[in-house]
Amino acid sequence: MTYCVGLLLNEGMVLLSDTRTNAGFDNIAIYKKMFVFEDPGERVVAILTAGSLSVTQTTIARVKEAMHDPDATEETSILKAPTMLNVAEIIGNMLARVRLDIDEKLSAMKQSASASLIVAGQRKGGEMRMFLIYPEGNFIEATEDTPFLQIGEHKYGKPILDRVVKPETSLADAQKAVLLSMDSTLRSNLSVGMPLDLAVIERDACRISSRRRIEAGDDNFRAMSEAWSRALREGFTQIRI
Amino acid sequence: MTYCVGLLLNEGMVLLSDTRTNAGFDNIAIYKKMFVFEDPGERVVAILTAGSLSVTQTTIARVKEAMHDPDATEETSILKAPTMLNVAEIIGNMLARVRLDIDEKLSAMKQSASASLIVAGQRKGGEMRMFLIYPEGNFIEATEDTPFLQIGEHKYGKPILDRVVKPETSLADAQKAVLLSMDSTLRSNLSVGMPLDLAVIERDACRISSRRRIEAGDDNFRAMSEAWSRALREGFTQIRI
Repeated sequence: MTYCVGLLLNEGMVLLSDTRTNAGFDNIAIYKKMFVFEDPGERVVAILTAGSLSVTQTTIARVKEAMHDPDATEETSILKAPTMLNVAEIIGNMLARVRLDIDEKLSAMKQSASASLIVAGQRKGGEMRMFLIYPEGNFIEATEDTPFLQIGEHKYGKPILDRVVKPETSLADAQKAVLLSMDSTLRSNLSVGMPLDLAVIERDACRISSRRRIEAGDDNFRAMSEAWSRALREGFTQIRI
Repeated sequence: MTYCVGLLLNEGMVLLSDTRTNAGFDNIAIYKKMFVFEDPGERVVAILTAGSLSVTQTTIARVKEAMHDPDATEETSILKAPTMLNVAEIIGNMLARVRLDIDEKLSAMKQSASASLIVAGQRKGGEMRMFLIYPEGNFIEATEDTPFLQIGEHKYGKPILDRVVKPETSLADAQKAVLLSMDSTLRSNLSVGMPLDLAVIERDACRISSRRRIEAGDDNFRAMSEAWSRALREGFTQIRI
């Protein structure tokens, strides 16, 4: 399982992913689920992945291959595509093809494989945009009304986002919100696990503004998690029914 | 969809259910999902239901029929069964049979129906016990380590329970906890809806100690919900990362 979340705010975009991958309970590994492609100052594209590792790895590998192909065109490379919508289409089509390929291989075993992605980015002169790409390659987009997108184990961490995230939320508060959202998910689902990857893309920077890996023993994360538990318990104590 | 939750505490048991039933988004109705059977002072059994209404209604109807049958025996009536474990077995078997019947009817349409139940109760001289009955009729039981059971849309409301519910939680705090757990669920899933049914069974009373329907406009519930939102936002504001 996985939990990835992206916020699209007036000041920029904030992305967070976990890194736990499991094939059964006895086969657990760490794989990053956040991939960043930049032409700094010109264009930035970040991809978060959830679902079958064979689908997501192959999709990312093909996206990279197409990008580095000397014959890459506006139709095939996410660094050349004229708009972020085109970027989402290229990645969506890639995902759909890979999924169909792998599904065909698995069909003999009556199994299937699936994956979904969050694609966030901005090109110079364009708007920041963020998409959730479904396994079939179609997608939806974050908007002012719904300024966040989640993939994977999304339910435990949604109430906090519903309550505090708005387009005008600051980037500092946004980082706090996604980390607390992840904290609730980590507590409730063992198949979501540390370390975490956190990235911030400031508006119009067209590059990754900051990126950080938060390891299992991270003191700041633990302190924040404990402070939030205390705040919840104190809030609970003060409420009268 | 549905959300029902039961807490098994040292001082007693607290049960909460919503009432929304839907067959598609354009067919929404109110049905109670909490059923109480008492021989006051001797025995109390409460059943919470989630899943296909045709399965749960038929199961409850057959449980009642068996109870009122003049030939009812210890093997068939939940008011005569010697232990709460036997009560859970009777209800579990009933649920499994009804589900199989209805599944057979639906198989021609390539559809299936399913349901799960929480069964909580105590007989004079016995312990309070609480079971989660799966669609197949097998069950698990609440324990000291895991003093709560949930059916239906359980994820949104689990983080608060994980943080505040312990066997030594008071019945007043327990009611607050289940109502806040429901509040998070109501906010995030439209197919869970007011009014709510809340019941408390005090230890060794062997009867329903209090029972309350909370209607959509309930002032206390709204005040509690707003106080909780405020507490969360204030807690959020105070945390530094």
